[in-house]
Amino acid sequence: MKRKLLAALLACTVTTPALADVLIDNVEGLTIDDNGKVKRFSALVIDDDGKIAQILERGDKKPQTDFREDGQGRVMIPGLIDAHAHVMGIGIGALTLDLSDTNTLDEALTKIRAFAAENEARPWILGRGWNQEKWGLGRFPTAAELDSAVADRPVYLQRVDGHAGWANSLAMQAAGITAATKNPSGGRVERLPGSQAPSGVFVDAAEELMTRAIPAPRPVERDLAFAEAQRVLHRFGITAVADMGTTIEDWQAYRRAGDAGTLTLRIMAYAGGPENMELIAGARPSPWLYEDKLRLNGVKLYMDGALGSRGAWLKRPYADDPGNTGLPLMTGAQLRNILVRAAQGNFQPAIHAIGDAADAEVLNAITEIAESFPGDRRWRVEHAQIVDPADLPLLGQHGIIASMQPVHQTSDRLMAEARLGPDRLEGAYAWNTILSLGGRLAFGSDAPVESPDPFAGLAAASTRMDANGQPFGGWRPQDRVNREQALAGFTSDAAFAGFAEGRFGRLLPGERADFVLVDRDPLLATPAELRATKVLETWVGGRKVYDAD
Amino acid sequence: MKRKLLAALLACTVTTPALADVLIDNVEGLTIDDNGKVKRFSALVIDDDGKIAQILERGDKKPQTDFREDGQGRVMIPGLIDAHAHVMGIGIGALTLDLSDTNTLDEALTKIRAFAAENEARPWILGRGWNQEKWGLGRFPTAAELDSAVADRPVYLQRVDGHAGWANSLAMQAAGITAATKNPSGGRVERLPGSQAPSGVFVDAAEELMTRAIPAPRPVERDLAFAEAQRVLHRFGITAVADMGTTIEDWQAYRRAGDAGTLTLRIMAYAGGPENMELIAGARPSPWLYEDKLRLNGVKLYMDGALGSRGAWLKRPYADDPGNTGLPLMTGAQLRNILVRAAQGNFQPAIHAIGDAADAEVLNAITEIAESFPGDRRWRVEHAQIVDPADLPLLGQHGIIASMQPVHQTSDRLMAEARLGPDRLEGAYAWNTILSLGGRLAFGSDAPVESPDPFAGLAAASTRMDANGQPFGGWRPQDRVNREQALAGFTSDAAFAGFAEGRFGRLLPGERADFVLVDRDPLLATPAELRATKVLETWVGGRKVYDAD
Repeated sequence: MKRKLLAALLACTVTTPALADVLIDNVEGLTIDDNGKVKRFSALVIDDDGKIAQILERGDKKPQTDFREDGQGRVMIPGLIDAHAHVMGIGIGALTLDLSDTNTLDEALTKIRAFAAENEARPWILGRGWNQEKWGLGRFPTAAELDSAVADRPVYLQRVDGHAGWANSLAMQAAGITAATKNPSGGRVERLPGSQAPSGVFVDAAEELMTRAIPAPRPVERDLAFAEAQRVLHRFGITAVADMGTTIEDWQAYRRAGDAGTLTLRIMAYAGGPENMELIAGARPSPWLYEDKLRLNGVKLYMDGALGSRGAWLKRPYADDPGNTGLPLMTGAQLRNILVRAAQGNFQPAIHAIGDAADAEVLNAITEIAESFPGDRRWRVEHAQIVDPADLPLLGQHGIIASMQPVHQTSDRLMAEARLGPDRLEGAYAWNTILSLGGRLAFGSDAPVESPDPFAGLAAASTRMDANGQPFGGWRPQDRVNREQALAGFTSDAAFAGFAEGRFGRLLPGERADFVLVDRDPLLATPAELRATKVLETWVGGRKVYDAD
Repeated sequence: MKRKLLAALLACTVTTPALADVLIDNVEGLTIDDNGKVKRFSALVIDDDGKIAQILERGDKKPQTDFREDGQGRVMIPGLIDAHAHVMGIGIGALTLDLSDTNTLDEALTKIRAFAAENEARPWILGRGWNQEKWGLGRFPTAAELDSAVADRPVYLQRVDGHAGWANSLAMQAAGITAATKNPSGGRVERLPGSQAPSGVFVDAAEELMTRAIPAPRPVERDLAFAEAQRVLHRFGITAVADMGTTIEDWQAYRRAGDAGTLTLRIMAYAGGPENMELIAGARPSPWLYEDKLRLNGVKLYMDGALGSRGAWLKRPYADDPGNTGLPLMTGAQLRNILVRAAQGNFQPAIHAIGDAADAEVLNAITEIAESFPGDRRWRVEHAQIVDPADLPLLGQHGIIASMQPVHQTSDRLMAEARLGPDRLEGAYAWNTILSLGGRLAFGSDAPVESPDPFAGLAAASTRMDANGQPFGGWRPQDRVNREQALAGFTSDAAFAGFAEGRFGRLLPGERADFVLVDRDPLLATPAELRATKVLETWVGGRKVYDAD
């Protein structure tokens, strides 16, 4: 049809209308350009496929378009890309009750009661953030108190630090908790005074007694959670995400949104293990679906755990736990086997490796395998927090992408110093060193582990100071990146890391019109100002998906 | 873009080209029309969305089109719809080795060796159809003989009757079969002469020892199987199917084909149980995807088993097994619970019910629930083979669709007589009675349980005689339907049963151009001729998907 109409159109003498549909004028636009440098512009033309037709500098002749919007001098930056997040985790977290602003037990009970009433369809009421110290309670709350707010469904609420949980009677019943339940190793079931009867609070390892009874979210709940995740991310100016550990349940929620026309977030998915990868995509990565909004790129693997719990695998023992080196979660043979299977199908592996031994194992495995699988593979190492300086050059040699989370550095620095001691920090969060050795970066947040706020990430990346400006001058400041590199890490480089360059991540002709209007210039603001950036509007594919007003 | 070009086009003075793209002329066309009657036509115009723009009778003025094809006087009928089949089962079956045409052990071994060489990627070689009697072997074949053909992979081949299987050494090793393996109840592990060592053949219940070791097909194998299923079905003139018991693995294969542009079969999917239904579709049936090629309509449930194995649930004991009434596979409460959940989401239930007790339970449950869920629900009963005549009117009262398989009647009649005795056959395969009581039929094959050949189905439906013309005049011929009703059962009524009316199933303007060119007129051919109908070409959405040449 289209072809014929076009032919007919070309055959007739009417003036050819411009392809452009919308002109957004009078903006302070900036983007990373083809050369990785910053390019500034003053107007943007969007065609009716939602792609950028043209960017204009001051003085350029403006094309005729159907619509014209005045940017009112606001700053326009590319839609931000989070190169490592857990989309469904963000959504499910956002749907749970947040008690962190409650100042008394009564206030909390009122809030819990209201939340349960607003969420009648939820089989369990879940939440977090309570703190009996802040409430001035002088003791833990009880199941009976929680029953007074919600007695028709199980309720389970985590303490602010995540080290304890508070259940109502139905929740304990569902978990089979009775006076006969013993304290597990490393945990404590709180008891009522002078009794073996459980009081309703479960500390540390005893939390598992409760959490294993909580049913997995149903597909309809995942749909709600995903819609919420999109809202949360767009509010932060995020238009695309690398979703780490996509399960078939997650994927189905994304597809349902795509089929229904409600998918507004671009998702580069990395399946949770080879089984999810194959079940989702079969023999090859999926095509880009829904106008570049969804693709199964590859597979997420775990080489080790995390520093905080001393699960990260180190070459030498933890400074604060001699004799413990953490441990690998796969053997080298298992890793190589999965990497080969993935590479045979052109799937992109994204391997979680935090400790220096884990990073060494992953980098060596890729080095070995890369010879048999030439071409543009873009092997990804996720986190790459502690890398032996001797191993860092391998990143550059094989075009490996270090997918890193700037805020982890500012959150973890004291803990990292404790875990590693002062002499093993040279390859820690070594962003600039990696770039200088020819490696590539992609920046993300690891949300919901950290806030998805990319402006906090941009500030941390370029200063290595936290929200309080600590430490002054930055932690190991030689490894900060400049403001342009930080922006690239959250835009063009994050797109490249997901094979999305040319589709989105920059405001250049031919790319999707994904952009954010903000209240200040992220390249010129002070670090404190940068962190306080206000997102005014978020657009995806030429369509507004968030408006602060 | 389209809209603007169209506006530009309308504004200029060039002659408006016809919307029609292809004229297929000079055919003996027939279809069920809006009134359920046969309409005949001589030409068809397809627009470039693959829909029917116009049907023309002799003498009608032919529109100007881009392309014109001469139908050479061939008979054109609507694409045939199988209202009950198992698509992935057809494909997986078609990919296994068929030994039914082998006349000696050596011939079989040669065929097995060649098949293994042609299918290097398959981790197991599976097949069926051998018969040591036909081979004149006088004994079962052995694992050692099978090893001589394939020694690098496990092989497992079922005997022609499905009551025994033949394994090679690697298959027995994978299943953990040794000389110490005991015969299970109801089965026998064949042993080498004078030894406890297993010979390689497993009889009846002992087959399970082997089959449980066969890995589930991987997604890549499912993709191959699905491609093969499409080929098999198009060869029979089938363009759409109600897929019964769709799993998430099946659904993913269909989506991968849709995403890749290789989906040519229209699939109305009924998920295998509520969990698959929710995981696939969430809160509501999926939209029609890929230009009306895929939709998750509802959920397939099992009320009972089958007559052959005496698993069908009867009101009174089996005539050939007094004291046995078969048994329900769900309680009435479970059935009602699932039906209510499905109806709340507008999902369409399709409930397997073969025995008269099972059909009564299902019809009564629907009767109860239908009051709470008014509107156009199209409750489906699958098979409805033996219905108590007292219950038959319920079908018509609630717009229930009886989804039946004509060839089951001709295959099962002697067995049904044995199981039920002569006095309980009045509601057996009661097609015409159901229609006369205001019920609706949809016809299918239950492939791969039976051949998917719809011409065998059309012949059985309209004659109640088998391929040998037995019994002469038809079995309980009062329940045959006329030729038009049979065609409707495999076209328009099968579409209606899947909420697809107006989309496909008839050759009328606005519907998808799904049709078959055949070598004879299915309404005029004798029963024997009808069974021998040759499919010349099959078209889906205006595109040729099978050509006999």
